[in-house]
Amino acid sequence: MLRFHSLRFSSSLFAPPLPLSPVSISITKPTRLTPRMASYSTSSSSSKLLFRQLFEKESSTYTYLLADASHPEKPALLIDPVDKTVDRDLSLIQQLGLKLVYAMNTHVHADHVTGTGLIKSKVPVVKSVISKASGATADLHVEQGDKVHFGDLFLEIRATPGHTAGCITYVTGDTPDQPQPRMAFAGDALLIRGCGRTDFQGGSSEQLYKSVHSQIFTLPKDTLLYPAHDYKGFTVSTVGEELQYNPRLTKDEETFKNIMANLSLSYSKMIDIAVPANMVCGIQSKTS
Amino acid sequence: MLRFHSLRFSSSLFAPPLPLSPVSISITKPTRLTPRMASYSTSSSSSKLLFRQLFEKESSTYTYLLADASHPEKPALLIDPVDKTVDRDLSLIQQLGLKLVYAMNTHVHADHVTGTGLIKSKVPVVKSVISKASGATADLHVEQGDKVHFGDLFLEIRATPGHTAGCITYVTGDTPDQPQPRMAFAGDALLIRGCGRTDFQGGSSEQLYKSVHSQIFTLPKDTLLYPAHDYKGFTVSTVGEELQYNPRLTKDEETFKNIMANLSLSYSKMIDIAVPANMVCGIQSKTS
Repeated sequence: MLRFHSLRFSSSLFAPPLPLSPVSISITKPTRLTPRMASYSTSSSSSKLLFRQLFEKESSTYTYLLADASHPEKPALLIDPVDKTVDRDLSLIQQLGLKLVYAMNTHVHADHVTGTGLIKSKVPVVKSVISKASGATADLHVEQGDKVHFGDLFLEIRATPGHTAGCITYVTGDTPDQPQPRMAFAGDALLIRGCGRTDFQGGSSEQLYKSVHSQIFTLPKDTLLYPAHDYKGFTVSTVGEELQYNPRLTKDEETFKNIMANLSLSYSKMIDIAVPANMVCGIQSKTS
Repeated sequence: MLRFHSLRFSSSLFAPPLPLSPVSISITKPTRLTPRMASYSTSSSSSKLLFRQLFEKESSTYTYLLADASHPEKPALLIDPVDKTVDRDLSLIQQLGLKLVYAMNTHVHADHVTGTGLIKSKVPVVKSVISKASGATADLHVEQGDKVHFGDLFLEIRATPGHTAGCITYVTGDTPDQPQPRMAFAGDALLIRGCGRTDFQGGSSEQLYKSVHSQIFTLPKDTLLYPAHDYKGFTVSTVGEELQYNPRLTKDEETFKNIMANLSLSYSKMIDIAVPANMVCGIQSKTS
């Protein structure tokens, strides 16, 4: 027991010290001397990375802002921006003094319109990024093993098809000068305790199973998993957690395929608008 | 330029290397040699703290899970749990192998029913925590300067009345063995680019102005600000950002009071259910 004068279930200053196990309920009053706890090493979480997770409520989509904050120009990128929240995102980027260089998508979304095209119309220097396998229009097409640099930081591309044929996962670098633990932006390939559907847009449950097991579950267990969506209010998971608790992807491949074949999901209400628009950076409706 | 063989706007492996400024658009292909960038110090973000931000969509409430993950018993606490998401939160806590010891509120909420009472009924060892000034029932009442310990980590209490008379902000410790940067869980006292209303529940715009300026804006600028709600999809801000960009609290006190007096907000639709329930840990409806 490292703490003196902690109080149990009482705010009285005159309660006698009680023997406490290390997790006992304790509140320390400021008028009492609190000796320093035994010291231990806690390294600083400071990093070059400025990171923000942003949420679009209607489609439950997460947009991610990453920047190299220690670089003189503070180059930044957005992953999976949504058309409806472009003004919010650009305003934040401006307030933080960042220079947006990339608007990237993990795949051609079926449930919302990407903000990429709108961002490019407002900030012409921004380049859109999507996988070559998606077949979608973009300034830059990436594929397995490519690296997207922003300042001294980078994301590597892992091909994770299965939800769509062109899905990719963006993963922070594995060198010591990159953020630790690593971060994986998996789009709809792997959701927190779930995964994206595989019944349209070139989806394949067999392919998704292989993608997640070979490209995501092989990352270090402490890798932070940031999905494109969450419908239950979770914001982040880890590879270790999903390896242990994902109700679909912890199963063997045949069971997984059976689960995915029997989800009985309704037709995506946005697909007929979103997919054609997202094939051209989300601006089809404005040009056609 | 530290990078060789980066490509500009092209995925062709045979494009000639172009001169790039450090923020130029560049994608590195895996088949090319990428020399190590000049090294710099990026310290690890490893910490004893396990942290999760959780969202309840209907009331746009954030619940925060904090635990000392390096302690043998992994003691954990929840800040501002919501009754509707108690099962989600307890399931996550169980999966992560944590021992929940506290269910804490920043104040008596008017827009949702706290999950505290429900949690206590399911996990009787859990102790509820709220401010003494709130007048609400709880196992532990805290006030300015108190510290709530969980394992080797702790939160200090700052009294930040104004939204309600009993509002408090929980702030991670300032000693080197505590998470860096510091984290402030401000409830409704300071929201991202906003603040809680001050027109009911003992609210006072004058008091709120003083609370934020004396108790939150005096924290280090890199302190991460985690609010009880966000309605625009932001998840976190910093004290420095709010000092610069909060549209209300950057104003002088008179202007702030005028803003708050003229918000013309509608009556809170949940207040008549939530406040009486939250005065008794959220379980009034089950016992009366």
